Amino acid sequence: MRPLAEVNALSDAAFLAAFASIAEHSPWVAERAGAARPYASCAAMVDAFQAAIAAARREEQMALLRAHPDLAGRLAPREFAEASRREQAGAGLDRLDETERARFLDLNARYRERFGIPFILAVRGTTPERILASFEERLGGALEEEVWTALAQVMRIVRFRLQDSITDMVDG
Amino acid sequence: MRPLAEVNALSDAAFLAAFASIAEHSPWVAERAGAARPYASCAAMVDAFQAAIAAARREEQMALLRAHPDLAGRLAPREFAEASRREQAGAGLDRLDETERARFLDLNARYRERFGIPFILAVRGTTPERILASFEERLGGALEEEVWTALAQVMRIVRFRLQDSITDMVDG
Repeated sequence: MRPLAEVNALSDAAFLAAFASIAEHSPWVAERAGAARPYASCAAMVDAFQAAIAAARREEQMALLRAHPDLAGRLAPREFAEASRREQAGAGLDRLDETERARFLDLNARYRERFGIPFILAVRGTTPERILASFEERLGGALEEEVWTALAQVMRIVRFRLQDSITDMVDG
Repeated sequence: MRPLAEVNALSDAAFLAAFASIAEHSPWVAERAGAARPYASCAAMVDAFQAAIAAARREEQMALLRAHPDLAGRLAPREFAEASRREQAGAGLDRLDETERARFLDLNARYRERFGIPFILAVRGTTPERILASFEERLGGALEEEVWTALAQVMRIVRFRLQDSITDMVDG
């Protein structure tokens, strides 16, 4: 946690070291977003990160999606970036019973097989019931709508992580 | 409702007349998607429409979003394309009480003021409770994630409408 003024004063190398992991295994997001410094506001910092994702080449966007842990990954917590693990615990995914867990694993496997990308959902503030409904809705979709949905969810996750990293970040 | 083989055999003008309204007030979507005929399958037809939206210029995408009726529009049904009106009745939005309706109208106005685009959600198969949760979640977002979310929802709505238009369209 650091104030925006400090973020604006970091060297490029220090900025990258601090924010490379905001986008999952994709330091190029922070690298390009960092070029927009100084940020006039915390919202401008979020916009810069989201704009870097939006403007990336299709193959970079797909690599970013594939780098994301999917929800089933919580069953193997050591594979997880710490941030992802915390976010998923927050949505109640650590309190599923065996039947629910089996259902999630099945949906997750079918989703990945159908689209070739993990099921990505910003789970903060949601519930297992809503995650399940979203899973079933999205599993019936077409590839392009899923790629756009997943990238929007990645942008949302990036926003949450930035809000957790900057002391004077205000929500909304 | 017509079979895919018939769609593939239509003249360009007849195709446009039949599918111009699949994307709200944006006949260019059908025009570009039509150029990919003949479609090898119904899924390929959906892909062509979604690809046309995905590949459009940013200002075309924003115009497509702004052309969409928002959920509050159901209170003034005559302004609505018939397809939108049916979709929204299906989600139980026609059975809200006055308090719920006021809450939707308030969220809707705040969303439009914040982002400059209507709140777009493919409501088929969902419930007023889930629409409300989605509203509150998305209202706190940043612009870029909302543009991507809204375009993904438009792609989804386009898919639903195509599935209603082609007799041999299978879901999933």
